[in-house]
Amino acid sequence: MKLYGSIEAGGTKFVCAVGNDKLEIIDIIQFPTTKPKETLEMTVNYFERFKDNLQSVSVASFGPIDMVRGSKTYGYITSTPKLFWDNTNIIGFLKDRIPVIYYFTTDVNASAFGEMVVRKDVDSLVYYTIGTGIGGGVIQSGHEIGGVGHGELGHIYVAKHPADYDFDGVCPFHGACLEGLAAGPSLEARTGIKGELIPENHPVWDIQAFYIAQAVMQATLSFRPQIIVLGGGVMKQSHMLKRVKSEFIKLLNGYVSIPPIDDYIVLPAVDNNGSATVGNFWLAKRKLTTD
Amino acid sequence: MKLYGSIEAGGTKFVCAVGNDKLEIIDIIQFPTTKPKETLEMTVNYFERFKDNLQSVSVASFGPIDMVRGSKTYGYITSTPKLFWDNTNIIGFLKDRIPVIYYFTTDVNASAFGEMVVRKDVDSLVYYTIGTGIGGGVIQSGHEIGGVGHGELGHIYVAKHPADYDFDGVCPFHGACLEGLAAGPSLEARTGIKGELIPENHPVWDIQAFYIAQAVMQATLSFRPQIIVLGGGVMKQSHMLKRVKSEFIKLLNGYVSIPPIDDYIVLPAVDNNGSATVGNFWLAKRKLTTD
Repeated sequence: MKLYGSIEAGGTKFVCAVGNDKLEIIDIIQFPTTKPKETLEMTVNYFERFKDNLQSVSVASFGPIDMVRGSKTYGYITSTPKLFWDNTNIIGFLKDRIPVIYYFTTDVNASAFGEMVVRKDVDSLVYYTIGTGIGGGVIQSGHEIGGVGHGELGHIYVAKHPADYDFDGVCPFHGACLEGLAAGPSLEARTGIKGELIPENHPVWDIQAFYIAQAVMQATLSFRPQIIVLGGGVMKQSHMLKRVKSEFIKLLNGYVSIPPIDDYIVLPAVDNNGSATVGNFWLAKRKLTTD
Repeated sequence: MKLYGSIEAGGTKFVCAVGNDKLEIIDIIQFPTTKPKETLEMTVNYFERFKDNLQSVSVASFGPIDMVRGSKTYGYITSTPKLFWDNTNIIGFLKDRIPVIYYFTTDVNASAFGEMVVRKDVDSLVYYTIGTGIGGGVIQSGHEIGGVGHGELGHIYVAKHPADYDFDGVCPFHGACLEGLAAGPSLEARTGIKGELIPENHPVWDIQAFYIAQAVMQATLSFRPQIIVLGGGVMKQSHMLKRVKSEFIKLLNGYVSIPPIDDYIVLPAVDNNGSATVGNFWLAKRKLTTD
Protein backbone atom coordinates (compact mmCIF):
# COMPACT_ATOMS: atom_id res chain seq x y z
CA MET A 1 0.00 0.00 0.00
CA LYS A 2 1.29 3.45 -0.91
CA LEU A 3 1.47 5.86 2.03
CA TYR A 4 1.92 9.61 2.20
CA GLY A 5 3.24 11.56 5.17
CA SER A 6 1.94 14.75 6.75
CA ILE A 7 3.93 16.83 9.21
CA GLU A 8 2.27 19.85 10.76
CA ALA A 9 5.16 21.60 12.40
CA GLY A 10 3.46 24.02 14.75
CA GLY A 11 5.01 26.32 17.29
CA THR A 12 3.47 24.43 20.22
CA LYS A 13 2.99 20.92 18.81
CA PHE A 14 3.93 18.67 15.93
CA VAL A 15 1.19 16.55 14.34
CA CYS A 16 2.51 13.68 12.22
CA ALA A 17 0.25 11.42 10.18
CA VAL A 18 0.32 8.89 7.36
CA GLY A 19 -2.45 8.60 4.82
CA ASN A 20 -3.44 6.34 1.98
CA ASP A 21 -4.10 6.97 -1.67
CA LYS A 22 -7.59 8.24 -0.87
CA LEU A 23 -6.06 10.82 1.52
CA GLU A 24 -7.56 9.00 4.50
CA ILE A 25 -5.68 9.06 7.81
CA ILE A 26 -4.15 5.63 8.57
CA ASP A 27 -2.24 6.72 11.66
CA ILE A 28 -1.72 10.00 13.51
CA ILE A 29 0.35 11.17 16.48
CA GLN A 30 1.16 14.45 18.18
CA PHE A 31 3.85 15.66 20.57
CA PRO A 32 4.99 19.02 21.94
CA THR A 33 7.45 21.20 20.03
CA THR A 34 10.58 21.40 22.17
CA LYS A 35 14.07 21.82 20.68
CA PRO A 36 14.67 21.14 16.98
CA LYS A 37 16.88 18.07 17.32
CA GLU A 38 14.62 16.43 19.89
CA THR A 39 11.38 17.16 18.06
CA LEU A 40 12.70 16.22 14.62
CA GLU A 41 14.15 13.02 16.08
CA MET A 42 10.68 12.07 17.35
CA THR A 43 9.31 12.88 13.91
CA VAL A 44 11.84 10.61 12.21
CA ASN A 45 11.18 7.81 14.70
CA TYR A 46 7.48 8.01 13.94
CA PHE A 47 7.87 7.76 10.17
CA GLU A 48 10.47 4.99 10.32
CA ARG A 49 7.71 2.55 11.15
CA PHE A 50 6.11 3.29 7.77
CA LYS A 51 9.20 3.69 5.64
CA ASP A 52 8.66 0.62 3.48
CA ASN A 53 5.46 2.13 2.08
CA LEU A 54 6.10 5.84 2.48
CA GLN A 55 6.25 7.55 -0.92
CA SER A 56 6.56 11.21 -0.02
CA VAL A 57 6.01 13.66 2.83
CA SER A 58 4.64 17.19 2.96
CA VAL A 59 5.75 19.47 5.77
CA ALA A 60 3.51 22.40 6.76
CA SER A 61 5.52 24.56 9.06
CA PHE A 62 5.25 27.60 11.27
CA GLY A 63 7.32 30.41 9.88
CA PRO A 64 8.85 32.33 8.49
CA ILE A 65 10.13 29.60 6.21
CA ASP A 66 12.11 29.55 2.98
CA MET A 67 9.98 27.81 0.38
CA VAL A 68 11.61 29.31 -2.70
CA ARG A 69 12.87 26.45 -4.88
CA GLY A 70 16.57 26.78 -5.60
CA SER A 71 17.24 29.07 -2.65
CA LYS A 72 20.30 28.30 -0.52
CA THR A 73 18.13 27.99 2.58
CA TYR A 74 15.20 26.18 0.94
CA GLY A 75 13.54 23.95 3.52
CA TYR A 76 14.58 26.08 6.50
CA ILE A 77 12.59 27.74 9.22
CA THR A 78 14.41 31.08 8.97
CA SER A 79 14.17 34.10 11.27
CA THR A 80 11.53 32.89 13.73
CA PRO A 81 11.40 34.50 17.17
CA LYS A 82 10.70 31.01 18.59
CA LEU A 83 13.54 30.01 20.90
CA PHE A 84 16.00 27.44 19.44
CA TRP A 85 14.23 27.20 16.04
CA ASP A 86 15.89 30.12 14.27
CA ASN A 87 17.63 28.97 11.08
CA THR A 88 16.61 25.28 11.31
CA ASN A 89 17.09 23.12 8.22
CA ILE A 90 13.99 21.04 8.76
CA ILE A 91 13.78 19.42 5.31
CA GLY A 92 17.51 18.68 5.31
CA PHE A 93 17.28 16.87 8.66
CA LEU A 94 14.28 14.80 7.61
CA LYS A 95 15.53 13.93 4.12
CA ASP A 96 18.82 12.75 5.51
CA ARG A 97 17.07 10.26 7.77
CA ILE A 98 13.98 9.38 5.76
CA PRO A 99 15.08 9.73 2.14
CA VAL A 100 11.81 10.24 0.30
CA ILE A 101 10.45 13.16 -1.73
CA TYR A 102 9.44 16.19 0.34
CA TYR A 103 7.12 19.13 -0.16
CA PHE A 104 7.56 22.20 2.03
CA THR A 105 5.00 24.90 2.66
CA THR A 106 3.41 26.99 5.39
CA ASP A 107 0.85 25.68 7.85
CA VAL A 108 -1.87 27.91 6.38
CA ASN A 109 -1.04 26.95 2.80
CA ALA A 110 -1.45 23.27 3.65
CA SER A 111 -4.81 24.06 5.24
CA ALA A 112 -5.81 25.98 2.13
CA PHE A 113 -4.92 22.97 -0.04
CA GLY A 114 -6.84 20.65 2.27
CA GLU A 115 -9.92 22.83 1.96
CA MET A 116 -9.45 22.96 -1.81
CA VAL A 117 -9.28 19.20 -2.34
CA VAL A 118 -12.41 18.38 -0.33
CA ARG A 119 -14.45 20.84 -2.40
CA LYS A 120 -15.50 20.34 -6.01
CA ASP A 121 -14.42 22.67 -8.80
CA VAL A 122 -12.31 24.97 -6.63
CA ASP A 123 -8.77 25.91 -7.64
CA SER A 124 -8.65 29.45 -6.26
CA LEU A 125 -9.14 29.79 -2.51
CA VAL A 126 -8.04 31.82 0.50
CA TYR A 127 -7.84 30.22 3.94
CA TYR A 128 -7.52 32.33 7.10
CA THR A 129 -6.87 31.02 10.56
CA ILE A 130 -8.03 33.41 13.26
CA GLY A 131 -6.87 32.21 16.65
CA THR A 132 -3.89 33.11 18.82
CA GLY A 133 -2.53 34.76 15.69
CA ILE A 134 -3.85 35.38 12.21
CA GLY A 135 -2.44 33.77 9.10
CA GLY A 136 -3.61 33.26 5.56
CA GLY A 137 -2.91 30.78 2.79
CA VAL A 138 -3.68 31.58 -0.82
CA ILE A 139 -4.13 29.22 -3.75
CA GLN A 140 -4.57 30.28 -7.35
CA SER A 141 -4.95 27.83 -10.22
CA GLY A 142 -4.01 25.08 -7.79
CA HIS A 143 -0.72 26.63 -6.68
CA GLU A 144 0.49 28.82 -3.83
CA ILE A 145 0.90 32.55 -4.14
CA GLY A 146 4.30 34.00 -3.35
CA GLY A 147 7.17 35.75 -5.09
CA VAL A 148 10.31 35.78 -2.96
CA GLY A 149 8.50 34.14 -0.04
CA HIS A 150 5.16 33.38 1.53
CA GLY A 151 2.54 35.97 2.42
CA GLU A 152 1.86 37.26 5.89
CA LEU A 153 -1.79 38.21 5.55
CA GLY A 154 -2.25 38.63 9.29
CA HIS A 155 -0.06 41.71 9.53
CA ILE A 156 -1.80 43.98 7.07
CA TYR A 157 -3.07 47.30 8.43
CA VAL A 158 -6.81 47.83 8.62
CA ALA A 159 -9.23 50.68 9.22
CA LYS A 160 -10.11 51.13 12.88
CA HIS A 161 -13.63 50.55 14.11
CA PRO A 162 -14.97 53.90 15.39
CA ALA A 163 -15.53 52.37 18.85
CA ASP A 164 -11.96 51.07 18.92
CA TYR A 165 -9.86 54.21 18.28
CA ASP A 166 -8.31 54.09 21.73
CA PHE A 167 -7.12 50.48 21.53
CA ASP A 168 -3.49 50.26 20.40
CA GLY A 169 -3.54 46.60 19.40
CA VAL A 170 -1.34 43.81 20.73
CA CYS A 171 0.95 42.85 17.83
CA PRO A 172 4.53 43.14 19.11
CA PHE A 173 5.67 44.21 15.61
CA HIS A 174 2.87 46.46 14.42
CA GLY A 175 0.51 47.21 17.29
CA ALA A 176 -2.75 47.76 15.48
CA CYS A 177 -2.37 45.49 12.42
CA LEU A 178 -5.06 42.90 11.68
CA GLU A 179 -3.52 40.35 14.08
CA GLY A 180 -3.02 43.01 16.74
CA LEU A 181 -6.67 44.01 16.53
CA ALA A 182 -8.54 40.81 15.74
CA ALA A 183 -6.64 37.72 16.93
CA GLY A 184 -7.77 36.03 20.15
CA PRO A 185 -5.47 37.93 22.57
CA SER A 186 -6.95 41.28 21.49
CA LEU A 187 -10.28 40.20 22.96
CA GLU A 188 -8.86 39.71 26.43
CA ALA A 189 -6.72 42.84 26.13
CA ARG A 190 -9.82 44.95 25.49
CA THR A 191 -12.27 43.35 27.88
CA GLY A 192 -10.19 41.70 30.60
CA ILE A 193 -12.19 38.55 29.91
CA LYS A 194 -10.82 35.45 28.17
CA GLY A 195 -12.19 35.30 24.62
CA GLU A 196 -14.13 32.06 25.06
CA LEU A 197 -15.90 33.49 28.15
CA ILE A 198 -17.07 36.76 26.58
CA PRO A 199 -20.88 36.72 26.25
CA GLU A 200 -22.37 36.69 22.76
CA ASN A 201 -24.02 40.09 23.23
CA HIS A 202 -20.78 41.89 24.14
CA PRO A 203 -20.04 44.78 21.73
CA VAL A 204 -16.46 43.58 21.21
CA TRP A 205 -17.70 40.88 18.82
CA ASP A 206 -18.96 43.47 16.36
CA ILE A 207 -15.60 45.20 16.49
CA GLN A 208 -13.82 41.94 15.80
CA ALA A 209 -16.20 40.98 13.00
CA PHE A 210 -15.50 44.37 11.38
CA TYR A 211 -11.77 43.57 11.26
CA ILE A 212 -12.22 40.00 10.03
CA ALA A 213 -14.54 41.36 7.33
CA GLN A 214 -11.70 43.65 6.23
CA ALA A 215 -9.45 40.61 5.90
CA VAL A 216 -12.10 39.06 3.66
CA MET A 217 -12.33 42.33 1.72
CA GLN A 218 -8.57 42.43 1.19
CA ALA A 219 -8.50 38.81 0.08
CA THR A 220 -11.38 39.48 -2.30
CA LEU A 221 -9.80 42.53 -3.93
CA SER A 222 -6.25 41.15 -3.98
CA PHE A 223 -6.83 37.57 -5.10
CA ARG A 224 -10.42 37.31 -6.40
CA PRO A 225 -10.76 33.77 -5.02
CA GLN A 226 -13.73 31.48 -5.62
CA ILE A 227 -14.15 30.97 -1.90
CA ILE A 228 -12.77 32.24 1.43
CA VAL A 229 -12.51 29.78 4.33
CA LEU A 230 -12.33 31.13 7.89
CA GLY A 231 -10.78 28.73 10.38
CA GLY A 232 -9.22 28.98 13.82
CA GLY A 233 -10.49 29.26 17.38
CA VAL A 234 -12.21 32.62 17.08
CA MET A 235 -14.45 31.34 14.28
CA LYS A 236 -15.68 28.53 16.56
CA GLN A 237 -17.87 31.19 18.20
CA SER A 238 -21.13 30.16 16.55
CA HIS A 239 -22.26 33.76 16.00
CA MET A 240 -19.10 35.04 14.27
CA LEU A 241 -19.62 33.82 10.71
CA LYS A 242 -22.92 35.64 10.38
CA ARG A 243 -21.46 38.86 11.79
CA VAL A 244 -18.49 38.73 9.43
CA LYS A 245 -20.72 38.19 6.39
CA SER A 246 -22.90 41.11 7.36
CA GLU A 247 -19.93 43.47 7.88
CA PHE A 248 -18.28 42.32 4.65
CA ILE A 249 -21.36 43.02 2.55
CA LYS A 250 -21.43 46.57 3.92
CA LEU A 251 -17.70 47.10 3.32
CA LEU A 252 -17.65 45.71 -0.23
CA ASN A 253 -20.75 47.69 -1.18
CA GLY A 254 -21.21 45.70 -4.39
CA TYR A 255 -17.90 46.85 -5.85
CA VAL A 256 -16.96 43.52 -7.43
CA SER A 257 -19.20 40.55 -8.08
CA ILE A 258 -18.86 37.64 -5.71
CA PRO A 259 -20.69 34.31 -5.43
CA PRO A 260 -23.73 34.10 -3.11
CA ILE A 261 -22.39 35.12 0.30
CA ASP A 262 -23.17 31.77 1.97
CA ASP A 263 -21.10 29.96 -0.67
CA TYR A 264 -18.31 32.53 -0.53
CA ILE A 265 -17.42 33.00 3.15
CA VAL A 266 -17.45 29.62 4.84
CA LEU A 267 -16.11 27.63 7.77
CA PRO A 268 -13.65 24.77 7.15
CA ALA A 269 -15.15 21.65 5.53
CA VAL A 270 -12.62 19.42 7.33
CA ASP A 271 -13.39 19.05 11.05
CA ASN A 272 -11.07 19.35 14.05
CA ASN A 273 -8.41 21.52 12.37
CA GLY A 274 -7.72 18.62 10.04
CA SER A 275 -7.47 20.66 6.83
CA ALA A 276 -3.67 20.78 6.89
CA THR A 277 -3.38 16.98 7.21
CA VAL A 278 -5.55 16.37 4.15
CA GLY A 279 -3.70 19.14 2.34
CA ASN A 280 -0.34 17.60 3.19
CA PHE A 281 -1.37 14.15 1.95
CA TRP A 282 -2.53 15.69 -1.31
CA LEU A 283 0.62 17.80 -1.69
CA ALA A 284 2.85 14.82 -0.93
CA LYS A 285 1.01 12.78 -3.53
CA ARG A 286 1.10 15.53 -6.14
CA LYS A 287 4.81 16.09 -5.54
CA LEU A 288 5.50 12.48 -6.60
CA THR A 289 4.18 13.09 -10.09
CA THR A 290 5.42 16.65 -10.64
CA ASP A 291 8.98 16.39 -9.37
CA MET B 1 8.62 42.82 -40.64
CA LYS B 2 6.55 41.36 -37.84
CA LEU B 3 4.46 43.91 -35.94
CA TYR B 4 2.60 43.74 -32.64
CA GLY B 5 -0.31 45.94 -31.61
CA SER B 6 -0.96 47.74 -28.34
CA ILE B 7 -4.30 49.19 -27.35
CA GLU B 8 -4.54 51.10 -24.11
CA ALA B 9 -8.27 51.48 -23.70
CA GLY B 10 -8.55 54.18 -21.07
CA GLY B 11 -11.62 55.87 -19.73
CA THR B 12 -10.65 59.25 -21.22
CA LYS B 13 -8.43 58.27 -24.16
CA PHE B 14 -7.38 55.35 -26.31
CA VAL B 15 -3.68 54.98 -27.14
CA CYS B 16 -2.98 52.66 -30.07
CA ALA B 17 0.51 51.68 -31.16
CA VAL B 18 2.41 49.16 -33.24
CA GLY B 19 5.79 47.84 -32.25
CA ASN B 20 8.49 45.67 -33.72
CA ASP B 21 10.14 42.48 -32.53
CA LYS B 22 12.36 44.46 -30.17
CA LEU B 23 9.23 46.00 -28.57
CA GLU B 24 10.12 49.41 -30.02
CA ILE B 25 7.31 51.78 -30.95
CA ILE B 26 7.01 52.09 -34.75
CA ASP B 27 3.87 54.20 -34.72
CA ILE B 28 1.53 55.57 -32.06
CA ILE B 29 -1.73 57.52 -32.01
CA GLN B 30 -4.26 58.64 -29.42
CA PHE B 31 -7.85 59.80 -29.52
CA PRO B 32 -10.55 60.51 -26.94
CA THR B 33 -12.79 57.74 -25.63
CA THR B 34 -16.32 58.56 -26.80
CA LYS B 35 -18.95 55.88 -27.53
CA PRO B 36 -17.87 52.25 -27.99
CA LYS B 37 -18.76 51.90 -31.68
CA GLU B 38 -17.12 55.19 -32.65
CA THR B 39 -13.97 54.65 -30.60
CA LEU B 40 -13.52 51.02 -31.61
CA GLU B 41 -14.09 51.98 -35.25
CA MET B 42 -11.22 54.48 -34.99
CA THR B 43 -9.10 51.74 -33.43
CA VAL B 44 -9.84 49.35 -36.27
CA ASN B 45 -9.12 52.02 -38.88
CA TYR B 46 -5.75 52.67 -37.29
CA PHE B 47 -4.65 49.04 -37.29
CA GLU B 48 -5.92 48.35 -40.81
CA ARG B 49 -2.92 50.26 -42.16
CA PHE B 50 -0.61 47.67 -40.58
CA LYS B 51 -2.66 44.54 -41.10
CA ASP B 52 -0.29 42.85 -43.55
CA ASN B 53 2.39 42.66 -40.85
CA LEU B 54 0.31 42.64 -37.69
CA GLN B 55 0.77 39.36 -35.81
CA SER B 56 -1.18 39.90 -32.62
CA VAL B 57 -2.64 42.63 -30.43
CA SER B 58 -2.81 43.11 -26.67
CA VAL B 59 -5.61 45.20 -25.22
CA ALA B 60 -5.15 46.81 -21.81
CA SER B 61 -8.50 48.12 -20.75
CA PHE B 62 -10.17 50.13 -18.04
CA GLY B 63 -12.49 47.94 -16.06
CA PRO B 64 -14.00 46.01 -14.68
CA ILE B 65 -13.28 43.54 -17.47
CA ASP B 66 -13.81 39.84 -17.91
CA MET B 67 -10.39 38.28 -18.51
CA VAL B 68 -11.26 34.74 -17.40
CA ARG B 69 -10.53 32.41 -20.30
CA GLY B 70 -13.55 30.35 -21.25
CA SER B 71 -16.02 32.73 -19.66
CA LYS B 72 -19.12 33.63 -21.69
CA THR B 73 -18.25 37.31 -21.50
CA TYR B 74 -14.48 36.94 -21.95
CA GLY B 75 -13.14 40.07 -23.66
CA TYR B 76 -15.91 42.34 -22.36
CA ILE B 77 -15.78 45.51 -20.36
CA THR B 78 -18.49 44.47 -17.90
CA SER B 79 -20.23 46.57 -15.22
CA THR B 80 -18.39 49.86 -15.63
CA PRO B 81 -20.11 53.03 -14.43
CA LYS B 82 -18.71 54.77 -17.56
CA LEU B 83 -21.60 55.90 -19.73
CA PHE B 84 -22.24 53.76 -22.86
CA TRP B 85 -19.41 51.27 -22.12
CA ASP B 86 -21.28 48.91 -19.85
CA ASN B 87 -21.21 45.33 -21.23
CA THR B 88 -19.06 46.09 -24.31
CA ASN B 89 -17.57 43.14 -26.20
CA ILE B 90 -14.33 44.89 -27.05
CA ILE B 91 -12.31 41.83 -28.13
CA GLY B 92 -15.23 40.48 -30.16
CA PHE B 93 -15.57 43.76 -32.09
CA LEU B 94 -11.85 43.99 -32.83
CA LYS B 95 -11.34 40.34 -33.74
CA ASP B 96 -14.23 40.47 -36.17
CA ARG B 97 -12.61 43.31 -38.09
CA ILE B 98 -8.89 42.62 -37.57
CA PRO B 99 -8.71 38.84 -37.30
CA VAL B 100 -5.43 38.31 -35.46
CA ILE B 101 -4.63 36.80 -32.07
CA TYR B 102 -5.62 38.95 -29.07
CA TYR B 103 -4.54 39.20 -25.46
CA PHE B 104 -6.84 40.94 -22.98
CA THR B 105 -5.89 42.35 -19.62
CA THR B 106 -6.27 45.38 -17.38
CA ASP B 107 -4.44 48.68 -17.91
CA VAL B 108 -2.42 48.20 -14.72
CA ASN B 109 -1.50 44.62 -15.54
CA ALA B 110 -0.09 45.72 -18.91
CA SER B 111 1.94 48.41 -17.12
CA ALA B 112 3.19 45.80 -14.67
CA PHE B 113 4.31 43.58 -17.57
CA GLY B 114 6.00 46.55 -19.26
CA GLU B 115 7.96 47.30 -16.10
CA MET B 116 8.85 43.63 -15.77
CA VAL B 117 10.27 43.22 -19.27
CA VAL B 118 12.55 46.28 -19.11
CA ARG B 119 14.14 44.99 -15.90
CA LYS B 120 16.49 42.05 -15.63
CA ASP B 121 15.70 38.95 -13.58
CA VAL B 122 12.28 40.11 -12.42
CA ASP B 123 9.25 37.84 -12.72
CA SER B 124 7.35 38.90 -9.61
CA LEU B 125 6.28 42.54 -9.48
CA VAL B 126 3.50 44.83 -8.29
CA TYR B 127 2.69 48.04 -10.18
CA TYR B 128 0.50 50.75 -8.66
CA THR B 129 -0.82 53.78 -10.44
CA ILE B 130 -1.68 56.60 -8.08
CA GLY B 131 -3.44 59.36 -9.93
CA THR B 132 -7.10 60.26 -10.36
CA GLY B 133 -7.76 56.77 -9.03
CA ILE B 134 -5.59 54.01 -7.64
CA GLY B 135 -5.11 50.66 -9.34
CA GLY B 136 -2.64 47.84 -9.04
CA GLY B 137 -1.32 45.11 -11.33
CA VAL B 138 0.34 42.01 -9.95
CA ILE B 139 2.65 39.56 -11.71
CA GLN B 140 3.94 36.34 -10.21
CA SER B 141 6.19 33.93 -12.08
CA GLY B 142 5.53 35.96 -15.19
CA HIS B 143 1.74 35.70 -15.03
CA GLU B 144 -1.12 37.80 -13.73
CA ILE B 145 -2.72 37.20 -10.38
CA GLY B 146 -6.46 36.62 -10.33
CA GLY B 147 -8.96 33.88 -9.56
CA VAL B 148 -12.42 34.68 -10.87
CA GLY B 149 -11.32 38.13 -12.04
CA HIS B 150 -8.73 40.86 -11.69
CA GLY B 151 -7.78 42.53 -8.44
CA GLU B 152 -8.91 45.95 -7.31
CA LEU B 153 -6.01 46.93 -5.09
CA GLY B 154 -7.12 50.56 -4.91
CA HIS B 155 -10.22 49.82 -2.87
CA ILE B 156 -8.70 48.08 0.10
CA TYR B 157 -9.31 49.65 3.51
CA VAL B 158 -6.36 51.19 5.32
CA ALA B 159 -5.57 52.50 8.79
CA LYS B 160 -6.32 56.21 9.17
CA HIS B 161 -3.51 58.68 9.77
CA PRO B 162 -4.07 60.21 13.24
CA ALA B 163 -4.27 63.71 11.68
CA ASP B 164 -6.89 62.49 9.18
CA TYR B 165 -9.59 60.98 11.41
CA ASP B 166 -12.13 63.61 10.40
CA PHE B 167 -11.73 63.15 6.65
CA ASP B 168 -14.37 60.79 5.25
CA GLY B 169 -12.62 60.03 1.96
CA VAL B 170 -13.94 60.57 -1.55
CA CYS B 171 -14.49 57.08 -2.98
CA PRO B 172 -18.14 56.95 -4.12
CA PHE B 173 -18.25 53.24 -3.21
CA HIS B 174 -16.25 53.06 0.01
CA GLY B 175 -15.54 56.57 1.27
CA ALA B 176 -12.30 56.06 3.13
CA CYS B 177 -10.69 53.21 1.19
CA LEU B 178 -7.15 53.62 -0.17
CA GLU B 179 -8.41 55.38 -3.32
CA GLY B 180 -10.77 57.55 -1.31
CA LEU B 181 -7.93 58.67 0.97
CA ALA B 182 -4.86 58.77 -1.27
CA ALA B 183 -5.78 59.31 -4.93
CA GLY B 184 -5.33 62.79 -6.39
CA PRO B 185 -8.87 64.08 -5.70
CA SER B 186 -8.46 63.48 -1.96
CA LEU B 187 -5.73 66.14 -1.88
CA GLU B 188 -8.02 68.84 -3.20
CA ALA B 189 -10.91 67.63 -1.04
CA ARG B 190 -8.80 68.10 2.11
CA THR B 191 -6.97 71.30 1.26
CA GLY B 192 -9.13 73.13 -1.27
CA ILE B 193 -5.99 73.37 -3.43
CA LYS B 194 -5.41 71.39 -6.62
CA GLY B 195 -2.90 68.61 -5.92
CA GLU B 196 -0.21 69.89 -8.28
CA LEU B 197 -0.32 73.34 -6.63
CA ILE B 198 0.04 72.17 -3.01
CA PRO B 199 3.44 73.26 -1.64
CA GLU B 200 5.97 70.58 -0.78
CA ASN B 201 5.97 71.46 2.92
CA HIS B 202 2.20 71.02 3.32
CA PRO B 203 1.38 68.37 5.98
CA VAL B 204 -1.07 66.64 3.63
CA TRP B 205 1.85 65.00 1.79
CA ASP B 206 2.86 63.06 4.89
CA ILE B 207 -0.70 61.86 5.28
CA GLN B 208 -0.78 60.72 1.68
CA ALA B 209 2.63 59.03 1.93
CA PHE B 210 1.35 57.12 4.97
CA TYR B 211 -1.50 55.67 2.90
CA ILE B 212 0.64 54.86 -0.13
CA ALA B 213 3.11 53.14 2.22
CA GLN B 214 0.22 50.98 3.43
CA ALA B 215 -0.47 49.98 -0.17
CA VAL B 216 3.19 48.95 -0.42
CA MET B 217 2.87 47.08 2.88
CA GLN B 218 -0.21 45.21 1.67
CA ALA B 219 1.48 44.31 -1.61
CA THR B 220 4.56 43.12 0.29
CA LEU B 221 2.64 40.90 2.72
CA SER B 222 0.14 39.61 0.16
CA PHE B 223 2.35 38.93 -2.85
CA ARG B 224 5.99 39.07 -1.67
CA PRO B 225 7.11 40.63 -4.97
CA GLN B 226 10.72 41.28 -5.96
CA ILE B 227 9.91 44.92 -6.65
CA ILE B 228 7.07 47.43 -6.29
CA VAL B 229 6.72 50.14 -8.94
CA LEU B 230 4.79 53.31 -8.11
CA GLY B 231 3.44 55.15 -11.15
CA GLY B 232 0.77 57.77 -11.81
CA GLY B 233 0.51 61.52 -11.45
CA VAL B 234 0.83 61.74 -7.68
CA MET B 235 4.25 60.02 -7.78
CA LYS B 236 5.50 62.72 -10.17
CA GLN B 237 5.82 64.94 -7.07
CA SER B 238 9.58 64.64 -6.70
CA HIS B 239 9.43 64.40 -2.90
CA MET B 240 6.87 61.57 -2.68
CA LEU B 241 9.02 58.51 -3.27
CA LYS B 242 11.32 59.32 -0.36
CA ARG B 243 8.36 59.96 1.96
CA VAL B 244 6.71 56.67 1.01
CA LYS B 245 9.91 54.69 1.61
CA SER B 246 10.35 56.27 5.01
CA GLU B 247 6.75 55.55 6.09
CA PHE B 248 6.91 52.00 4.72
CA ILE B 249 10.04 51.14 6.70
CA LYS B 250 8.30 52.29 9.88
CA LEU B 251 5.14 50.33 9.08
CA LEU B 252 6.86 47.08 8.11
CA ASN B 253 9.14 47.25 11.15
CA GLY B 254 11.42 44.54 9.81
CA TYR B 255 8.70 41.90 9.81
CA VAL B 256 9.69 40.24 6.55
CA SER B 257 12.94 40.58 4.65
CA ILE B 258 12.87 42.81 1.59
CA PRO B 259 15.57 43.89 -0.86
CA PRO B 260 17.42 47.17 -0.18
CA ILE B 261 14.67 49.80 -0.05
CA ASP B 262 15.96 51.79 -3.05
CA ASP B 263 15.81 48.66 -5.21
CA TYR B 264 12.43 47.64 -3.83
CA ILE B 265 10.16 50.72 -4.08
CA VAL B 266 10.84 52.44 -7.38
CA LEU B 267 9.36 54.76 -9.99
CA PRO B 268 8.55 53.40 -13.47
CA ALA B 269 11.55 52.59 -15.65
CA VAL B 270 9.58 53.42 -18.80
CA ASP B 271 9.04 57.19 -19.23
CA ASN B 272 5.87 59.09 -20.09
CA ASN B 273 3.41 56.48 -18.87
CA GLY B 274 4.72 54.17 -21.58
CA SER B 275 4.89 51.00 -19.47
CA ALA B 276 1.57 49.66 -20.73
CA THR B 277 2.61 50.01 -24.38
CA VAL B 278 5.80 48.00 -23.87
CA GLY B 279 3.84 45.51 -21.79
CA ASN B 280 1.23 45.15 -24.51
CA PHE B 281 3.83 44.51 -27.23
CA TRP B 282 5.42 41.85 -25.05
CA LEU B 283 2.07 40.25 -24.19
CA ALA B 284 1.00 40.27 -27.85
CA LYS B 285 4.26 38.62 -28.83
CA ARG B 286 4.09 36.03 -26.05
CA LYS B 287 0.50 35.21 -26.93
CA LEU B 288 1.61 34.14 -30.41
CA THR B 289 3.74 31.34 -29.02
CA THR B 290 1.57 30.22 -26.12
CA ASP B 291 -1.84 30.11 -27.74
